[in-house]
Amino acid sequence: MAVGLSEPTDLLAIKGVKLATTACGIKKPVDGQPARDDLVLMTFAGHSVCAVTFTQNAFCAAPVSVAKKHLQQTAPRCFLINSGNANAGTGQQGMDDAQQSCRWVAEKLNCDATQVLPFSTGVIGEPLPLENLHAGITQLIPALDASNWLAAAHGIMTTDTIAKAVSEQVVLEGETITLTGIAKGSGMIKPDMATMLCFIATDASIEADLLQQYLSRAVDNSFNNITVDGDTSTNDACMLVATCQSSFSVIAEDPASEQFYQALERVCLTLAQAIIRDGEGATKFVTINIEQARSITEAKTVAYTIAHSPLVKTALFASDPNWGRILAAVGRAGLADLDISTVNIFLGDVCIVRAGAKSHTYTEAQGQAVMNQAEIDIRVELGRGEQCATIWTTDLSHDYISINSDYRS
Amino acid sequence: MAVGLSEPTDLLAIKGVKLATTACGIKKPVDGQPARDDLVLMTFAGHSVCAVTFTQNAFCAAPVSVAKKHLQQTAPRCFLINSGNANAGTGQQGMDDAQQSCRWVAEKLNCDATQVLPFSTGVIGEPLPLENLHAGITQLIPALDASNWLAAAHGIMTTDTIAKAVSEQVVLEGETITLTGIAKGSGMIKPDMATMLCFIATDASIEADLLQQYLSRAVDNSFNNITVDGDTSTNDACMLVATCQSSFSVIAEDPASEQFYQALERVCLTLAQAIIRDGEGATKFVTINIEQARSITEAKTVAYTIAHSPLVKTALFASDPNWGRILAAVGRAGLADLDISTVNIFLGDVCIVRAGAKSHTYTEAQGQAVMNQAEIDIRVELGRGEQCATIWTTDLSHDYISINSDYRS
Repeated sequence: MAVGLSEPTDLLAIKGVKLATTACGIKKPVDGQPARDDLVLMTFAGHSVCAVTFTQNAFCAAPVSVAKKHLQQTAPRCFLINSGNANAGTGQQGMDDAQQSCRWVAEKLNCDATQVLPFSTGVIGEPLPLENLHAGITQLIPALDASNWLAAAHGIMTTDTIAKAVSEQVVLEGETITLTGIAKGSGMIKPDMATMLCFIATDASIEADLLQQYLSRAVDNSFNNITVDGDTSTNDACMLVATCQSSFSVIAEDPASEQFYQALERVCLTLAQAIIRDGEGATKFVTINIEQARSITEAKTVAYTIAHSPLVKTALFASDPNWGRILAAVGRAGLADLDISTVNIFLGDVCIVRAGAKSHTYTEAQGQAVMNQAEIDIRVELGRGEQCATIWTTDLSHDYISINSDYRS
Repeated sequence: MAVGLSEPTDLLAIKGVKLATTACGIKKPVDGQPARDDLVLMTFAGHSVCAVTFTQNAFCAAPVSVAKKHLQQTAPRCFLINSGNANAGTGQQGMDDAQQSCRWVAEKLNCDATQVLPFSTGVIGEPLPLENLHAGITQLIPALDASNWLAAAHGIMTTDTIAKAVSEQVVLEGETITLTGIAKGSGMIKPDMATMLCFIATDASIEADLLQQYLSRAVDNSFNNITVDGDTSTNDACMLVATCQSSFSVIAEDPASEQFYQALERVCLTLAQAIIRDGEGATKFVTINIEQARSITEAKTVAYTIAHSPLVKTALFASDPNWGRILAAVGRAGLADLDISTVNIFLGDVCIVRAGAKSHTYTEAQGQAVMNQAEIDIRVELGRGEQCATIWTTDLSHDYISINSDYRS
């Protein structure tokens, strides 16, 4: 029931990137349905460079630890991604299993195990089914092809109801540069420097440091501004690979490089918002703008307090213009010396609170008209500064409860 | 559907306190049911002293502002409490309405309007129906009686499914001192120095400063350690009145005074836990203990991160021992330099995580046995200090969503 989201189309191949997908039985079968893909391999041409952001959760999963270790040693040659099992909270066995899966891929591709980065997503605390992985890896190698982006987007899904993928192109000094990205995520979404599995590739020629700068900035402006439930995953990772197959080089001081960055940010924003549109149980796509704050941190604090309020979220689910709950959330956000008489609150274009109290022009019918929509803007003017922040979130519905009380059963 | 909570019995009158309750039509009628009480008056004998804690929400309601103002001017003679309407987010009109209701009570009781403290609870952002209040106040005066504590506990309820009240007695140097308290609250519960309406009275003789010290300490150890949904109300207030009718005086340095404090803390704890047991949609009563933390603040941060995690809360609702969600919440709590290899997690007496990974002795059957209970203990040993904290919370159920999507309709 994703909000305003349809199956991705027109995904563009990236020179130097091949993908393959298979079903090896890590995801539990659903009665009467064919086995779902749960193992994906992405390979990159030599000289590719890679930028990364990982979860800040102190309990990071085994594959995250192994990937970090491998990145310190060499440039990656490929990613192995399984869905259905997070390999998190699995201790030393989880580390051993992640490393074993890298060795198997390395044997097939004739590279070093440290050139393989492992990623996992799914249930926490269960051991990886290694035999299934081994069989799956064997099937993946002959299936590698540049055209498999959509299949890969499906292969990394867990509770997602729809695949998330997008391509962008930008022409720099006459040469067309392409970016294609896929992402998954629907619950346990409040990324902190990364989101739950996103893989982006480009054929741009670019140095690793600049690529990392661009990715960090783009993630900060996209994935780090979304929340479904405030729960940061143990497995979050966002990867950006440049295969450097273009003859045009993206260089920091070159004005054209900003165009490349903007294309990257559009890819990240589209994928981040797609995660929210497909948030577990989501029936609304909600944009929260906080303006006139003293600092960006303060603006984000207010935005997340509104976004995480179960009372605001259930009012959104009910399409109920119960603006008192928004006001109460602003009030409890913990801002020093908040003077409520300077606070205005808007639902869409409708002013609901003016100078800290119900606006004289507000009518319930106006509020209801905005709340009936599937896409809702909440805007708060704090009246105490010039900084602002925007985040995206969902409502809290019966389906969220059903999905998360049934997930393991 | 309160967890382990039954209708209060054996409430004891407090010398010097009278109460009256009436239904004046502020609460919306429920089809086929008699009108519910929604207006309560409590009066106190002369020389009574009063201690208070109010909400820290910057958007505090009009009655909270008026009560604070009146308290600066004189000692209160009575409380007027309405349920069904919070008189919050109502601007100047709300202030005028609260003051008008105080004047009406003052006329009837022949006292000054500043000796009346107003309290309101219910829907935010609607004007108080003043005519109903006026009619109700007239009915209250002749009904005042010392035996009306249970009726008063019912009269202040909103989404509560059961009344919350308790009495305690303590014998100090041969004299029996009595405390009786009532509270309401079920949703929008994460009190911050107070909870959503609690009124306690005692016949103890005690000075105002000491009474305030005791109340602040007791609230800190009870109401400030509970959460249903992380939403702090605009109207929270906890009031403690001592009518000073006992001949024994509670004095700070006297060892007997600690016995009085302990009785007060028991009253606060019982009422605070009753609010959680009757939390909106609650099917579980959950105690979260965080031990071996570097500071109490750090322990509380971890406790609330677990308590507010929608994923932990839905697992509790499903009686699903999905301990990976608890582990993920600990990991994202933002503790500096958290070494997961020192972390142990227990469900009841069952060790589920030992040294940061699934305990070798853990079986799903053990976890399931604990989760099947209505009262569940979660204990986390952080292994990095000697401080600890305990908080109480609920699960997140379909009924929470239903209650909060239907509340205004």
